[in-house]
Formats: sequence, structure tokens, C-alpha cells
Amino acid sequence: MENFTAYNPTKLHFGKGVTEKLGETALEYGKKVLLLYGKGSVQRNGIYDKVVKQLNSIKAEVFEYSGIKPNPLVDDVLEAAQIGKLNNVDVIVAVGGGSVIDSAKITALSIANSTDPWAIMKYKVKPKKTIPLIAVLTLAATGTEMNGAAVLQNHKTNEKIGYVSSLNYPEHSFLDPEFTFTVPNDYTSYGVVDLIAHTLEAYFGEGEASLSDRFVEVIIKEAMEYGPLVLKEPENYEYRANIMWAATTALNGLTNYGRKSGDWGVHDIGHNISYLFDTPHGATLSIAYPAWLKLHKDRIPERIIKLGNQLFGTNSIEETIENIERFFKSINCPIRLSDINIGEDKKDELIEQMLATKINGMVHKFTDEDRKKVVELMM
Amino acid sequence: MENFTAYNPTKLHFGKGVTEKLGETALEYGKKVLLLYGKGSVQRNGIYDKVVKQLNSIKAEVFEYSGIKPNPLVDDVLEAAQIGKLNNVDVIVAVGGGSVIDSAKITALSIANSTDPWAIMKYKVKPKKTIPLIAVLTLAATGTEMNGAAVLQNHKTNEKIGYVSSLNYPEHSFLDPEFTFTVPNDYTSYGVVDLIAHTLEAYFGEGEASLSDRFVEVIIKEAMEYGPLVLKEPENYEYRANIMWAATTALNGLTNYGRKSGDWGVHDIGHNISYLFDTPHGATLSIAYPAWLKLHKDRIPERIIKLGNQLFGTNSIEETIENIERFFKSINCPIRLSDINIGEDKKDELIEQMLATKINGMVHKFTDEDRKKVVELMM
Repeated sequence: MENFTAYNPTKLHFGKGVTEKLGETALEYGKKVLLLYGKGSVQRNGIYDKVVKQLNSIKAEVFEYSGIKPNPLVDDVLEAAQIGKLNNVDVIVAVGGGSVIDSAKITALSIANSTDPWAIMKYKVKPKKTIPLIAVLTLAATGTEMNGAAVLQNHKTNEKIGYVSSLNYPEHSFLDPEFTFTVPNDYTSYGVVDLIAHTLEAYFGEGEASLSDRFVEVIIKEAMEYGPLVLKEPENYEYRANIMWAATTALNGLTNYGRKSGDWGVHDIGHNISYLFDTPHGATLSIAYPAWLKLHKDRIPERIIKLGNQLFGTNSIEETIENIERFFKSINCPIRLSDINIGEDKKDELIEQMLATKINGMVHKFTDEDRKKVVELMM
Repeated sequence: MENFTAYNPTKLHFGKGVTEKLGETALEYGKKVLLLYGKGSVQRNGIYDKVVKQLNSIKAEVFEYSGIKPNPLVDDVLEAAQIGKLNNVDVIVAVGGGSVIDSAKITALSIANSTDPWAIMKYKVKPKKTIPLIAVLTLAATGTEMNGAAVLQNHKTNEKIGYVSSLNYPEHSFLDPEFTFTVPNDYTSYGVVDLIAHTLEAYFGEGEASLSDRFVEVIIKEAMEYGPLVLKEPENYEYRANIMWAATTALNGLTNYGRKSGDWGVHDIGHNISYLFDTPHGATLSIAYPAWLKLHKDRIPERIIKLGNQLFGTNSIEETIENIERFFKSINCPIRLSDINIGEDKKDELIEQMLATKINGMVHKFTDEDRKKVVELMM
């Protein structure tokens, strides 16, 4: 086991009606609030009204920035940060899924340090402080509600990249499973894939961590049990709650303690697909993971066999990969690029992107040959 | 799933050599240090010297209180708090297992609030503040290094009881698995039992929490795999590390999120046995858990069957209990009072104690008939 520090500063409020404490919580930090959200679904489903009611109850001065996209753009962060800076906000309230909360994390850093957000993302500056962030989660998927990671894309530099900092943890996160009742089935499924992929990025990282491996195993089992059920009953509180909590635990440190690092090669592949074709993040992962496993199956056979054994009771690498593909298909997720209408005609463009950004894992490294081969395996 | 807040303020440093940061960490709080430890094993195994070297490196003024017993007494806490108060200490450094760290938690509250420690334990006063506590763990067992619980006993009132407060979390905990290399096999086994019992107290609590149940399952599996191995190779770093981390996760919140509460009836029984006979805590639990399961088997059959299914692949309650007993025996822990030479002649005394303190679970309640029956089942 590698040395590690177990510490997570986010205070996470989970359950029915928890946002009733949002107002008083925000007030701890001040009354000038920058409210961030996406493209309007929170207005249609009533969550926006609930949040605004809370902020009105403390007579907050609210500055809004909305329209953050599912694959979030640094341009939006730049604009949001300008509003925040101009109005000297005390706290950010981010209402949405991973894209909104990730954008809010970098917005907070950009405001507090008067720094260009992309310079932060590229680790060109080292922020020393931030402003407090309160997250109201509306999608079970990325785990951003209880971690220090954020992902953004930039059309000027042709990149979609991640940034990790201990300053990025939300101060508070509010997770009401009822807030996910209206998530459509496709995005619910993408969230299930995303959380599974997060545990696998840890599992295929570096360093032996027996208990963390076991946590990976049961978080995936939880996702595989309740994922299909929630698609059948989208307003079943228990199912939504189980998936929501599984998604948080998949990337709040728990699955990684005792490892040197996770791998994150599959996410790198997925980010490049999303960048080129605006594919939903989860859909890129259900395509990329099987391909990644096939690429690496002779390099890390023991790890894949251990996983297959724990999850499916098989000692066969092929059966393990087939079972993973079968599960992704069963929740209507694509497992090949052709499933999302990305055909042979796009192959060269994707390979070019992969070579240009030098997609890689932190542990399992890619040659250019691998970069081409993994695209072939995804076709 | 019940509503919950996931938050744990302890910063836990895990791994080889982590206490090399102890000095600088203590210095964050000040130079006047109250150093607490037990009956001298930390002096014999060199851990005391390592800690003192760290405190000397920051030129700390160190006030010592030692001699804290395995079943810790409020009298020691009272004396330690007087020393701390008199010298206006900035921080407590507690070096030891659960008894020392639990004592340190109440000492800290007693110093900060100028309050009688037993009044705190009995919830007769509500402490509003505490002084910072740094724990250096030398025994994998109680989980106190990352939670808000403390247990003390009082010979004047004939009680051994627990106290829980959000003020009780250590600021920092240092867990170096090498510091547990010299723990003798009997106490290593008691620690394994203790951590398993903690997960079961959560599992038999109130409220459906699917993922928390799964975490219970794998923490027990980890303990059952590495417990026997560490007895064979007490200086195997990986085995010690796995058990140490399992013990922390068994009672740092993870197994309880989504439940209304744990049960803790078995701990209440165990505390009364320890109180009367000074039996090591873990040894009381390996005796009390099988008896508790037998007492409750017709009341909560589904929960016991689910556990048996997950752990041993059986749907039989009897086989499940037998398997648990067999495991405890396999690591040389007692499963009956007669195994620790408490015979029929002590039965009435124990029943009297159980009736007097009205031992109970928080969820599964005891009648006086149950209190007698559970003693019979332990004989």
C-alpha cells in the first residue's frame, strides 16, 4: 500500500429536502452570490425556483450566469468570472451536473486570484486561494460534488483537459435524489457509466490497495444493480439515492487511497471524442473502456482477471470485457463509435486528434501505435 | 435511504514514516504540548522516542501524562486535564490505541470547557469548544482516529459508557502500520474483532442503506483475509496496513451513511463485561456478538441471512453464526465467557450488572428477559 492522506473537506448534505438549508448555508459566507447553472433544465423542473427562494430568504444579492454547456467551455468560465469579479461576490452557488460545478470551481479560482482560467487549467499559474463554492447537484455522475477535479474544454487550443487542486473542493454540496427524477434515461445511463469508469480509473492505477479494490468492486455492483432499475422507475427515490451516493463515492478519494495514482487514460480518450463530436461524456466512456481493456489485456491480465472474478465470477479476460460491454448495452449506452454514428469517414480525424493531444494514461502509457489501435478498437 | 451528512474533518496521514511530519503539524497549534500515552509499551518499542524527537525538533514544551489503562478510567482523564489546564496547553498529542485517544478526546473537552469529564460523558453539560488533538495510533482496532466517539469507565458510578460529539474528531491522525508491528497476537486479534463488530453495529442499525451494507461486507472480508495472515507474519507491512486501514473505515462514517443509526447493543454488553472483569474490549465482542445474533435471530432473520449470504454464501442463519464463531476462534478469540474463565459462579453478578445499567441497543431493544438470556447465551 502506498502512503496517502485521507481528508475530504466537503460537507455533503444528502437526502430529501436538504436544500432547505441552502440559504442559511450561503449566508455563512456572505450575501453576494454568483449563481451558475446550465441551459435551463433547472428552470423547467423547478429546482431553480427552489434555489432562488432560498437565496431570497436571506436577502441575497444574486448575480446569475447561465448557459453552461454539457461539455463545458472555458469561454463561459471567463465570462462568469468577470461577473463575479466585477460584483465582488462572496460565494458561488452552482446548480447542475458536473459541467456546471466544474465550471464553478475554475470560476472561483479565477475570481479569487484574478487569473485567466485557462492558465489555471494548464497549471501555468498556481492559485493560492479561492472563493467558497456551494454545489447543488442535479445529476449523479461525475463525483465533482466531493472532489478537487474539474474538466473544461477550449476551442482555441483544441483541448478538453482536467485540473485537480485541493482548493477545488466545494465547501458544501447538497444532494437531493429527487432533484434527479427528471434526468432523462440517456443521461442517467451516462452517469452510471461515468461512475463505473471512475472506479476503474482508480482500479487500473498504480499500487496495491486491497480494500480500495474491494470498494471499487461493490460500487460497481451497486451501479449494476440500481442502474437498470432506475431506468425503469425514474422517480423511485431509493434507486435514485443509491445511484447518486454511488457516484459520489466513486470519486471522492475512497477508491484511490493506498494507490500512487489512478490511470485516467480512458478519460483522456473520452475527452478527445467529446471535444471533436460533442459526445456526452458518459457515452464516450462506454465506448472507450472496452477498447482500452482490449488494448491492455496482454499487459495487465491479472488485474482484468481479478476484476472479472469479483464482478462476474469469471477468470476469462474476454468474458470480463464482454460482460462489461453487455452491461453498457443493457442500459442503452454505445459501445462502438458506429453506435453514435461516427463512421469510418471520421477515423482519421480522431486519430489525428489523439496523436496531436498525445492521449495518455498516468500509469499505462500509450505509444502512437496504441493511439491508432485504440481508435480502431472503438470503430 | 435516510438523510445524512457526509463530513469528516480529521486529516489522516497513513503510511511508512508519516510521523516525520508530526512536529511541524503540532507547531501549527502551538508549542505547549500535553503528551498522553499508556502503560509504557510505546517506550519499549521506540515510538515514544520518535514522537519526543519530533516535539523536540520544534522546541515544544511537553507536559506528560501516562499510565492510561486499556479500559480507560475517567480518573486518568481528570488528572490529565488538570495538568493540561494548569499549563495552558495548546494541543494534545495522544500516542496509543483507542483507550489513550479516547481519553485524550475527553481531556481536550475538559480542558477547553473547564468541565468535569464525567459530566461530559453523561451529556450533563454541552461542551462548545475543544483544544486540538493529534493522534498517533499504535493499535488497529477502535477507529477512534477518525471519528467523534470516546469510551470511558467510572468505578464510582459502576459504568463504562460512550460519548459522541463532532468536537471529538482528531485534527490530525498519524497511522504508520510499522507502529503496530509489535502488537502481540492477542491484541491484534481483538482489534480485528473490534473492527468487524463496528461494521456489524452499523449493519444491524436502522434504515436501508444498500451501498453502506456493501461496504460492511467488504471491510469484513478484508479483516477475515488479512487478520489470520498478520498473526502469522506480524511484521508484514502490507498485512498490517490492510488491517489498519480497514479498522479506520469500519467506524469513520462510511458504513453508516444512509442509516438512521447503528445499533450498539453488543458494545453495551461488551462494556459491561469489561467493566466487571477488566476483559479486553475485543474479547468481549467476540463473545457477545454470537450471543446477540442468537438472541435476535427470529427478530431480524432477513438481515442475518443477507449477511451470511454476502460473507459465507449461505442462506442459513445457524451456519452464518457458526461461521462467525469459527472465524473468531480461528484467530484465537474467545466466543464464550468460559473461554476467559468466567464461569457459572459469576453469572448472577453479570446479570445484575446488565439489569442495573439496562444494557440496550439503540435500535433493537432489550427486555430484562433478554438481558438474562443474552448472559445465558454467552456462558
